[in-house]
This record gives sequence, C-alpha cells and structure tokens, in this order.
Amino acid sequence: MTESNIVLHDDEIFAAHVGGKLGVALKAPLDTQRALSIAYTPGVAQVSRAIAADQTLAARYTWANRLVAVVSDGSAVLGIGDVGPAASLPVMEGKCALFKAFADLDSIPIVLDTKDPDEIVETLIRLRPTFGAVNLEDISAPRCFEIERRLVEALDCPVMHDDQHGTAIVVLAALIGAAAVVGRDPASLRVVVSGAGAAGVACAKILLAKGISDITVLDSQGIVHKDRQNLNAYKTEMAEQTNPRGLTGGIAEALNGADVFLGLSAGVVPPELVETMASDSIVFALSNPDPEIHPEDARKHAAVVATGRSDYPNQINNVLAFPGVFRGALDAGARRITEEMKVAAADAIFSVVADDLSPDCIVPSVLDPRVGPAVAQAVAAAAGT
Amino acid sequence: MTESNIVLHDDEIFAAHVGGKLGVALKAPLDTQRALSIAYTPGVAQVSRAIAADQTLAARYTWANRLVAVVSDGSAVLGIGDVGPAASLPVMEGKCALFKAFADLDSIPIVLDTKDPDEIVETLIRLRPTFGAVNLEDISAPRCFEIERRLVEALDCPVMHDDQHGTAIVVLAALIGAAAVVGRDPASLRVVVSGAGAAGVACAKILLAKGISDITVLDSQGIVHKDRQNLNAYKTEMAEQTNPRGLTGGIAEALNGADVFLGLSAGVVPPELVETMASDSIVFALSNPDPEIHPEDARKHAAVVATGRSDYPNQINNVLAFPGVFRGALDAGARRITEEMKVAAADAIFSVVADDLSPDCIVPSVLDPRVGPAVAQAVAAAAGT
Repeated sequence: MTESNIVLHDDEIFAAHVGGKLGVALKAPLDTQRALSIAYTPGVAQVSRAIAADQTLAARYTWANRLVAVVSDGSAVLGIGDVGPAASLPVMEGKCALFKAFADLDSIPIVLDTKDPDEIVETLIRLRPTFGAVNLEDISAPRCFEIERRLVEALDCPVMHDDQHGTAIVVLAALIGAAAVVGRDPASLRVVVSGAGAAGVACAKILLAKGISDITVLDSQGIVHKDRQNLNAYKTEMAEQTNPRGLTGGIAEALNGADVFLGLSAGVVPPELVETMASDSIVFALSNPDPEIHPEDARKHAAVVATGRSDYPNQINNVLAFPGVFRGALDAGARRITEEMKVAAADAIFSVVADDLSPDCIVPSVLDPRVGPAVAQAVAAAAGT
Repeated sequence: MTESNIVLHDDEIFAAHVGGKLGVALKAPLDTQRALSIAYTPGVAQVSRAIAADQTLAARYTWANRLVAVVSDGSAVLGIGDVGPAASLPVMEGKCALFKAFADLDSIPIVLDTKDPDEIVETLIRLRPTFGAVNLEDISAPRCFEIERRLVEALDCPVMHDDQHGTAIVVLAALIGAAAVVGRDPASLRVVVSGAGAAGVACAKILLAKGISDITVLDSQGIVHKDRQNLNAYKTEMAEQTNPRGLTGGIAEALNGADVFLGLSAGVVPPELVETMASDSIVFALSNPDPEIHPEDARKHAAVVATGRSDYPNQINNVLAFPGVFRGALDAGARRITEEMKVAAADAIFSVVADDLSPDCIVPSVLDPRVGPAVAQAVAAAAGT
C-alpha cells in the first residue's frame, strides 16, 4: 500500500485552486419554458405550499435534508493554526470535495467571522433549515468541545467535529489493525496518547468505548493526572477516566513499557524512548507534515508504524471516516452520531483490510472505493440499534 | 413571442423536485493520491497560508468571491405569503438554478429560521467570508427595506433584494419597450403603480431615476398622498416623491386619464376602468397566477398588455434581470449595486428586443440567451462609472 513520494510544486497547487474547487450543478437543465415553469414559477409554488402544510416534506423535496454544512471559524486550521475564516476556506472546499468524491454527498463550506461559541451556536441554529448535518472543522480546543456539545443538543440533525471524531475513528480502526498484526487483543494494550486537544481527547474516549482502559494522556505540560493544577474541564475529565497506573512525569515515564504511542502534536519523541516501549510496540506519529518521530527511526524498534503522510505506509487520514459516517447517518435519518456509530465506523474501516493485514497495511488506502460504502452501511446499521 | 399555454400536472412538478434541484460538483476529479494531495492535505495548507498572509487572495483561490447567497426567511414567498424558511427552499433552489443557467454563477440557498431584522443582518455579517454577494428573496415589506439598507451598509459586497429591484428593472425595460411601441417618450408617461410593497416602491423609484415623474402610487387603502395618516416610513417617502397631481381616492381616480397601469398585487381592476385611461394605454398586470385584470380584457382597450405569466405575450419575469445584474456586479468587482447599474440593466434588456418591437414583443423571452450577457456587460460598465 506504500505510495511513492509525491513532489508538489507551489505553482501547480495554486493553479489548481484558482476560482475555488467547487461549483453548483443543476440536476435537470433549465432550457425550456416548461422546465422553467416546473423548477420556478408557477410550478414551484405547489411544492412550497405542500411543505408549508407539512414541514416533513422539506426532506423529500429539497436538497437540504442531505446537505452537509462544513463549518469553521478558521481558528485551528490543519497544522497552521488560527488563520481566520477566509484562509480556512480552501480547506473547507477540499472537505466538501471529499464528501462528494467518497460518499456522493453534497456539502457547502460555511466559514464564520466570529470565534465566540455563543455566536457560532446561535448562527447555526438560525441556519438550521438550510442543511441536514453539520461537520465542524478546524475549530480550536477547548472551544470545539463546548460548541459541538451545544450544537448536538440544539440541532435535530447529525453534528460531528471531524478533527475530534474523524481522527478518533480512523485511529481506532488502525489500532485494531495493528493489534491484529502483533497478535494482541486491543483491550489489552497499554496506550499513550500524546496530546490533549481536540483529537487527543476524542481518541482517548473512543478507545475507552472500545474497552481499552489502560490509557495515559499527555499535554504540553506532561502526563495528565488527578493532582495536576489548572486543568480545563476536558482535561479534568481525562484525568478521571484515564491513567489507571497513576503515572506522573513526562513522555519518558509514559512510554516506558507502553504498547502504543499515539502522537497527536504534543511534541517530538526521541528515538531512544521508543526502545523503552514493550516489545512489538505500535507507533502512530500523526503530526503533519512533521511526525513526532520519523517513521523510519520508529520502525527500527516498533513492530507497526503509522503516520498522517501519504508517502509512508499506513496513512491515518480522516477521509477514511467522515464521508461514510455522515452518509450513513443521513441514510438512516439519524438525529445524532453516537459513540456506537463511531466504533462501528472504525470496525468497518478495519474490515476492508482485515484479509490483507501486514505491518505496512493496517488501514485501507484513502483511495480505496470500498471504504465509504462499508462505513456508511455500518454507521446506518448502528444508528438503528 | 407568445408561448403556448403549458399545462403542468402536480405529479410531474413534485417528481422534478425530489431530492431538490441542486448538487455540488467538483471542478477537478479526486481520484488519485496526487489530486488528493493538491486539493487537500498537504497541498491546501500552502493556499491557506498564502491567504492568511494576504486576505485579498481569497478572492482568487476560493469560490466565495463569486458565490451568491440566495437568502430568505420565507416571510413573503411568491404569491403564497409567510410560509417560513423550509417551505421557501424550493423557490431558493430554483433561484440558484436560474443563476447557474442564465449567468453561469454559483449560488447557494441560505434560509433563516428568524424573521428578526437584527438577527438576519447579524447572521449575514457573521457569514460574510462564505459568499461574495447577497440576493435577498421573498422577505416581506416593510422589513425588506430595512434589512436591505442595513446589509448594503454592513457588507462590502453586492446586496440586492430581487423582489424589489429585479422586478423594477424588468418593469422599466418593458415600459421603455411599450413606450416605443406607442411612440411615446417614457418620461412623458403618466403612471399608476398599484401596490406599495417591496416591488411597488422599487418600481416607483427606478421610474423616478429614469426621469418618469408623473407617478401615482396606491396601496390597499387607496392613493398614497401626503395627507394620509399612519403611513410607514417608506410610504411617507412615496407620498413625498410621487403624486405631483395631488390625487386622492382610489384606483378609479388614479386610472382616469393615466397612460400606464402597473399592477403589483394591490387588488383587481374592473375592465371598465381601463376604458377611462388615456388612448394608447399600457397595462402591466403582474400579479401571479391571477393578473389584476385578465390580459384579454385589458387588450380590448389598452395598446400594450404585459403579465407575469408565460402563457401570454410580454412576460415580465425577474429572471431577465437578476442573473446578469449579479454577474455584471461581480465581474466588475463592484461593492454595491447602484441605481445607475439597475437602469443600465433595464436599458440592456430593452436593447435585445429593440429591433423586433411590437405590441406583443416589448421584452425578450426569458429563454433568450442574449439577455444575461447583455445585462452583465451593461451592469459591469455602469459599475465603473
């Protein structure tokens, strides 16, 4: 599954973005008086009247019910930080393009010129009839937790912050694959999660939901434990739910004897620390473009290594999850995306490579066309349970 | 230019609206690792960084700068009234389809679950980086005037309430055509505007801008004049700017000796009143689907008759104006859509039929492919003046 190293030139990248990456298309041409009379006046009034009499018909006779709003304030874009809504737009357009390519879902970028959680929530409540689901994107922690929680409560449609849960789903899928490669039960693994931001917290939670209980979480100050001062509410919750060994200290103390290192941007890891991990260790160094430890260095000691990059084996990329997750939720008419649906998505991603597992193949290729439908089907099935 | 009467069956109309009328399309396929790396990670980060460093680059490298937001609260849909945002969506989708078909502009429906002008304005200010222009649609009067005025002030992009100005532009174009048919200078015409809502006020204003000063405006209570009590601010302005004859009373007093009747939904007109108009009179009965006076009755006395319907000659339809108006404004990089740009649009619409004028051909067919480009070019030129 290894892809060759792709060299991209700036002029090629910028040329591909001129005018943006999306367009609006008509489902039927408007080139006759009859077509106009059906799609617009006077015919459309019949449809509007029908919806006015029965609001549930909007789901059938408009695009909104299956339209995903890809929403960002640009406060935590990729690895480049708080660049604001306009600069986040190319990423949101890219996300919309992936929804179309991998799940045949229509979606629109909505970028907001406010970082105030109250205003973001209020704005999306007002926009509610416009869309059928919300993919929150590149919103900084810890604001992203509150914004997602409040929107899940306020909106009667699927809402998911992809930086949290998309990442967590693919990480879980890859960890199931890696555990199978080294012949371990995932629940028996001792896992170090380096990073307590959006992705770190969501990864810890989905691992807990999968029955993996020996988890140590670190932030930039070291291991998160109950005696730490000034933890925000989300890290306090992490301190309560993780660290059953009661570890303190930093990355060296955490990694010593651990089975899994899950790097989510809380700092570089010296190669010699990997040597202190248990035998058959698993290293996911997901920081982009510079992994916490170079994959070739990690591979000298670890049995399985994954990164976020396309030029090394085992690319952990959210695109394996979010298109199918939203597609499945919308197919099922689900009001919420539950932890069970997320775990089902991870299992489905793993299932695609289950028969082809190797240390260099623990997740499917991002281009594997079987992934989106498999995830959608599993998520829709889990929604009904 | 007469179109045959089109009989539409409900099942055909509803079938054409299943799933909505719009879709999102990719400008380039996402089927290789290289394409993914350009459109999404890691390539897209280059583009986001460039925009973060120079916000003006968002206009070049995203779709937003040329994206029209078609915005409604569903408070005054077509002829069916306050049906709310969900029921207005089929109309907004239709509008977006027309933008694409007639001006090759991308647009998205934004329907708002609030009717509060403060909240509508505030919401669009927060959404500003998402789009490049705002087409307000089906928002009730007099709220529509305040909302449009405040958005024009607050947003650095073209904003136009189409029910006001799209209608006004096409009415002016048709009146120029009708005046030419009867050999009159438009400025010499005595005009009765029946309706003081969104369209009526905008029509009166564009006629004044074109130099037509003898205008009488009526609302449901009769002629708008300075001695009327309880006029809202917009009708007070109408009372000051129109009615140079100081007329009082109702439609009978207004029509007696008038050259033009412009019906915009303030009530039916008995055919015998048309007989009291001046010779070579002009009747625009634009209420849909039931004109203020049946066009065949009007034609017995009037020299030129127009309606909003596609099954009679001279269809006055906003689609002749708004696609080209927004296209021209965006092509010119205009910050506002001025009265000069609107008059230029009307002149351009008229120019398309100037050589083919007849009592049954005072405006182009809504399907005439020359109209959109002609309007866009004229509006862009006027924007530069």
